[in-house]
Amino acid sequence: MNIETISEQRCFGGVQGFYWHDSRETGGAMKFGVFRPPLAQNAKAPVLYYLAGLTCTEETFVIKAGAQRLAAELGLILVTPDTSPRDTGIEGATGDWEFGEAAGFYLDATTPVFAKRFRMYSYVTKELPAVIGANFASADMHRESIFGHSMGGHGALTIALKNPQRYKSVSAFAPIVAPSEVPWGRKALLRYLGDDRSTWKPYDACALIRNGARFPSTILVDQGLADKFLESQLQPERFDRVCRDAGQALTLRLHAGYDHSYYFIGTLIADHLRHHADALRS
Amino acid sequence: MNIETISEQRCFGGVQGFYWHDSRETGGAMKFGVFRPPLAQNAKAPVLYYLAGLTCTEETFVIKAGAQRLAAELGLILVTPDTSPRDTGIEGATGDWEFGEAAGFYLDATTPVFAKRFRMYSYVTKELPAVIGANFASADMHRESIFGHSMGGHGALTIALKNPQRYKSVSAFAPIVAPSEVPWGRKALLRYLGDDRSTWKPYDACALIRNGARFPSTILVDQGLADKFLESQLQPERFDRVCRDAGQALTLRLHAGYDHSYYFIGTLIADHLRHHADALRS
Repeated sequence: MNIETISEQRCFGGVQGFYWHDSRETGGAMKFGVFRPPLAQNAKAPVLYYLAGLTCTEETFVIKAGAQRLAAELGLILVTPDTSPRDTGIEGATGDWEFGEAAGFYLDATTPVFAKRFRMYSYVTKELPAVIGANFASADMHRESIFGHSMGGHGALTIALKNPQRYKSVSAFAPIVAPSEVPWGRKALLRYLGDDRSTWKPYDACALIRNGARFPSTILVDQGLADKFLESQLQPERFDRVCRDAGQALTLRLHAGYDHSYYFIGTLIADHLRHHADALRS
Repeated sequence: MNIETISEQRCFGGVQGFYWHDSRETGGAMKFGVFRPPLAQNAKAPVLYYLAGLTCTEETFVIKAGAQRLAAELGLILVTPDTSPRDTGIEGATGDWEFGEAAGFYLDATTPVFAKRFRMYSYVTKELPAVIGANFASADMHRESIFGHSMGGHGALTIALKNPQRYKSVSAFAPIVAPSEVPWGRKALLRYLGDDRSTWKPYDACALIRNGARFPSTILVDQGLADKFLESQLQPERFDRVCRDAGQALTLRLHAGYDHSYYFIGTLIADHLRHHADALRS
């Protein structure tokens, strides 16, 4: 549970830090970011996890989203894990931006090649929270929420749907809502989980809801309509349909002109932080 | 005056674009960023130039400062030039992060090796504004202000002090206020301008004020006290002293715990944007 500090910098009256630790789940060093708001100097603050997308690291959201301003004001601790284990030395785990390192898909792999290191589901839901609780006295581990972008939106939705009592709220920017049905997801799930598609369902937000999973509060999803991955990889209408059919409360907002980038995320970050702060306050 | 579009992305209801053009002043392709706020779709908006520091590009501030949110609200066009000519092929212009490419120091070089390409003063004050005026119909070229960080803070201060009627306001984050007196500046000024130190004075904010230059409204400067360059390169007390002696209005704010990074800039960006918006409105 020991962590090493990479850097700590003052930011909006709080502290933006980067740290690393030896991860049991992923079998190597894992980096992560933590933003502590000013009030965390004297009081407990809730924890909001952000899961990033393909090609990203623990730094991407921290640098690009402009989230610290409002997180400072709302009193939220932001935790940003990396997107996969690194330096795995596994053949096939590098060289393809859609798969392997920086593309962990927030699942526990079962295929022999990847099962030992690619355990981002257990890392994000178990090991990382334990590390945060043990090392950041201000983190209130009874108040946690989760959100993410693209592959990380998939991660946030599936993790929240599988742990509906654990997280107080969930939201996503341009999530992969049906990985079983789109190229990014099919490639990753096949190689991480094998060709028995029944094992893919716990890692597919649409399939989870169809199979009975529910989240107790409204799910917030934002999607840009100029997103080049909209039709091929994202298909938010699938999620809208299964939520309607299942009676799952969903706010799906479509934004003309916005793409898949952090300019889109930055534009809407305040709404997401308020969504989570409202849930975490109660 | 033709420009080519590299990218345009929707951001806070406006457009963040990157462009390039063939620069007469610097003898090569120059990239720059322009953020247009939503109101620029139907009306003229004032132009605020941001000059970045050593090692930075036209992208750094755009990605890291979180400025578009309030610029959108205040109706400011943000223009972000690169920090020097690029791909100059000049021996000695690469390989040292403190000098040459990405370290143009916003001056017009006079030494034979650098005089032809390193003309960032004329580029920022003449060519780039002409390019903006010719290509962005919404840019109100009668309302311009300027700010910057570190080397770019030096650029903003010296450019504004030499053109006090041109710019409505000026501000800086952690500027190099006395380049003639500190290692970064001495190295750069010697190689760009030669060893006659009288030629350095027009590119030294403290020397400019000592020699009679004044800016007609209050100059805003923010400085972090955990900035590792504070004592060696920045020395804001020098600027404070010459402004006091000269009766130049200056608001110098010192911030405990903040360093030289964009976490510092992001924390204070709103104050700077409001400083400029107030001046540009009148």
